[in-house]
Amino acid sequence: MSTEQQNARRGGRAARNALRAAPLSDDIKPVRPGMPSGRYKVLTDAEVLKIHEAALNVLENIGLADPIQSTLDYLLPKGCKLDSNGRLLFPRSLIEDTIAMAGRNFPLYAQDPKYDMEPWGTNTYFGTAGAAVYIADPETGDYRESTAQDAYDIARLVDRMEHLHFYQRAVVPRDIPEAAAMDINTCYLSVSGTTKHVGTSWVHPDHLVESLKMLHEIAGGEDKWRARPFVSQSNCFVVPPLKFASDACKCLEVAVLAGMPVLLLSAGQAGATAPAAIAGALVQQVAECLAGLAYVNAIIPGAPAIFGLWCFVSDLRSGAMSGGSPEQVLLSAASAQMAHFYNLTGGTSSGISDAKFPDAQSGSEKGINHALVGNAGMNLIYEAAGMHGSLLGYSLEGVVLDNDTIGSVQRTIRGIQVTDESLSIETMRAQCIDGPGHYLGAEQTLRIMQSEYLYPAVGDRLSSKEWKEVGSPKINDVARKKVKEILDNHYPDHIPESVDANIRTYLDIRLAREKMVHPNKMVSA
Amino acid sequence: MSTEQQNARRGGRAARNALRAAPLSDDIKPVRPGMPSGRYKVLTDAEVLKIHEAALNVLENIGLADPIQSTLDYLLPKGCKLDSNGRLLFPRSLIEDTIAMAGRNFPLYAQDPKYDMEPWGTNTYFGTAGAAVYIADPETGDYRESTAQDAYDIARLVDRMEHLHFYQRAVVPRDIPEAAAMDINTCYLSVSGTTKHVGTSWVHPDHLVESLKMLHEIAGGEDKWRARPFVSQSNCFVVPPLKFASDACKCLEVAVLAGMPVLLLSAGQAGATAPAAIAGALVQQVAECLAGLAYVNAIIPGAPAIFGLWCFVSDLRSGAMSGGSPEQVLLSAASAQMAHFYNLTGGTSSGISDAKFPDAQSGSEKGINHALVGNAGMNLIYEAAGMHGSLLGYSLEGVVLDNDTIGSVQRTIRGIQVTDESLSIETMRAQCIDGPGHYLGAEQTLRIMQSEYLYPAVGDRLSSKEWKEVGSPKINDVARKKVKEILDNHYPDHIPESVDANIRTYLDIRLAREKMVHPNKMVSA
Repeated sequence: MSTEQQNARRGGRAARNALRAAPLSDDIKPVRPGMPSGRYKVLTDAEVLKIHEAALNVLENIGLADPIQSTLDYLLPKGCKLDSNGRLLFPRSLIEDTIAMAGRNFPLYAQDPKYDMEPWGTNTYFGTAGAAVYIADPETGDYRESTAQDAYDIARLVDRMEHLHFYQRAVVPRDIPEAAAMDINTCYLSVSGTTKHVGTSWVHPDHLVESLKMLHEIAGGEDKWRARPFVSQSNCFVVPPLKFASDACKCLEVAVLAGMPVLLLSAGQAGATAPAAIAGALVQQVAECLAGLAYVNAIIPGAPAIFGLWCFVSDLRSGAMSGGSPEQVLLSAASAQMAHFYNLTGGTSSGISDAKFPDAQSGSEKGINHALVGNAGMNLIYEAAGMHGSLLGYSLEGVVLDNDTIGSVQRTIRGIQVTDESLSIETMRAQCIDGPGHYLGAEQTLRIMQSEYLYPAVGDRLSSKEWKEVGSPKINDVARKKVKEILDNHYPDHIPESVDANIRTYLDIRLAREKMVHPNKMVSA
Repeated sequence: MSTEQQNARRGGRAARNALRAAPLSDDIKPVRPGMPSGRYKVLTDAEVLKIHEAALNVLENIGLADPIQSTLDYLLPKGCKLDSNGRLLFPRSLIEDTIAMAGRNFPLYAQDPKYDMEPWGTNTYFGTAGAAVYIADPETGDYRESTAQDAYDIARLVDRMEHLHFYQRAVVPRDIPEAAAMDINTCYLSVSGTTKHVGTSWVHPDHLVESLKMLHEIAGGEDKWRARPFVSQSNCFVVPPLKFASDACKCLEVAVLAGMPVLLLSAGQAGATAPAAIAGALVQQVAECLAGLAYVNAIIPGAPAIFGLWCFVSDLRSGAMSGGSPEQVLLSAASAQMAHFYNLTGGTSSGISDAKFPDAQSGSEKGINHALVGNAGMNLIYEAAGMHGSLLGYSLEGVVLDNDTIGSVQRTIRGIQVTDESLSIETMRAQCIDGPGHYLGAEQTLRIMQSEYLYPAVGDRLSSKEWKEVGSPKINDVARKKVKEILDNHYPDHIPESVDANIRTYLDIRLAREKMVHPNKMVSA
């Protein structure tokens, strides 16, 4: 009796067990970072064009208020004009030239090259972001202020999440109240906590200048940093509606000149700081990001900039933000199409929940948002894990849960392979006419069970009987255990101790070195 | 000072409060039942054609095993042939003729005409289904056997859910072990519990014949039943892979002759009773449903039949079903495209969770499934609410939670209105240049806050501060309270007492009349 026949007889359980015990090489995994996407299109091509035309109209006729002197110095020579209200108007030709010359197809580098990203076309990556001020604490069921330790812990947690492809700072270290120390430590904790691409922000250009010293040192010199900048700047250069933010503009200029990719964030809120009409909110954010892009390209043509269409949504009953709303899905998914239209690297938010802790509501909000924004093919999907409380509360076990959600969405992005073999006519014939009348042990089943099927990291698929036998575990507890397991063991510790020690001589680093290496290593040292 | 100016000054809160206190008429609601959909396409047109061609190939060359005599009597004269293995082969021409003559554009009626459905084109409706044997009991955190009372309660709960458009039987009344009584009571409890369209199933044709008496009586006569059949039969005429199910075939014949729409269910499981390759599972279910359609049309040409592409998915590690998997999303979404290709009324499942109770996992699985299957535009989306434990466990508070999820998905199906007005250029000018610099009290905001924005029925959008002030409510508890509120008060009681009393004279109805009317009414009677 052949192995195949034996498998067929036993329903293939032994063979499936043997297969899944084997480690899975990267090339046959059912999902990989940056898969091409775009099968969901909320706008027609004609609608995309209308939004583009309206954005040009807004830039030419309404413009942006409050430009600072250096913004004028960069943009007036390019053809911008100040109107009688002091608003900076952008001629259509400048925007068209900007789109033509803008940097595209630039990788976003990581400290570990295996995490480098190629966020162009419809390639789709997921990562964190945010500036939550609370941690959703499962111990107390309440919110507590987030700390530097949390910021570091979230970075190293993300470092171990298969389906999170980059790490943007997610919480504010509220135990560091001074703005300079806060910015510098946030950057330090991020790049120390993960070797994936990092995003963070600075409130003042001086803080960025200080941080750049550190980044050059970690890279091994400014030239190496410039060759592979592994940190991007999240920059709110605009305060919607249509007003420049002065300090952010200064930070933007420093970043562009320092070779740091800039995430040009238009973070309005439909119904509050952007029109309530979703189409209008789209127009405003596109106009704002195009203005930012003109600015970047006036500083250095082709400098790497991410088209950050991040308009949020209000619950119009209260005026409060609702990150989990369906209107948010529509805005974020349409944003992907606008980025594709310009062939620019686009970024948006998806996966913010209004629920305070991970629960059925947050799962649903995150599932719907990620499914549609992911399948819309946005290049960089921020806020993708852990974010609750309408951006105010961050959940570490939520990161683990959301990793499963994103994995699942990535599997949908991968899609269905339709080939002569996968159509399975011969498999049907073999199993139905000559075989056991089922496919459990079929050659095809065994061959594709790892390459075509994705299994959740923590999601429960036990039978109800087995589930009860193992103590009816709650998914949040399972995720919490996973968080603890990772935080107890995973200290990336990729920055040499000598480099770290030197950084601490000129920067006011608040998290002690011993909090950042594995306890065993400290003991042996 | 005008009202508008006053609104603008106050951020419009008073005006928004006044507006949302007013009841919302159906015609301005942001979502309505049966909206056209289809912006998510997982397959290309060429791939759809390949699957169709492969299905024809399977029908012509592999065919279906175990036809009963009456099946042969109907289908052999139409050109089918029995091969040497006793398998019934379907010539391509018969299938093509079947597709041409098949019933399409038939409404699915409800006892209350306001719930009639038009499930054709890409019109998309959501409803329940299933044959769960357990109730996920929030009191004990455990599963208990489902009863007749549960079956009735779920029907009247669904009757009150805005975003559930039909009710198909969801649980098995396990306190009625006899097959005949179980079938008859299930039908009775369904049509008594809701005035929406009902789906249910029968295991033996005699049970259906008995039930039809009741349905005629409720309709007010057989002619009125035939004019507006308000119950459809969920029929597993095929046991995948590719085998006829004898009793189900007999039930199918009775239903077709009785003017009852038939849901032709191909409910295989990829990797077990269908090929593990998703494309292959699609081919098999399309072939099976086309065979069923040929059968129905051989009985009565153009008889109403729903193309029920319901292939499930295995977790190939265990062989168990995984209804919440991303592979399930792909299968169900592709099924919508196959139904569109044939221009047939299609049905599939979406929203089954593998989690045992409503939690972050179930929310995510349901969110992803509904977002993509809903936007794929399947006409009838079954299993859409309450289903957990990979089809074994039903949650009543889950129904309330899933209603919010479906509402949200429907809002995404509605899409973005792009008009000269919604592009909002004049609103931007008014608010940015001449106005307060925000949109809170803008005329547009007030005008569209009810018609363009959907608000959840139970979802939490409070600020974290307000949430704490109201006692940090858990979403499952909020939903449970809503369930209790409905079950304590909503007794549809639409079947006249005399009709009900008469039905009880010839059918063995197990739920006492007093369990089916409002306690107050019983007292006053």
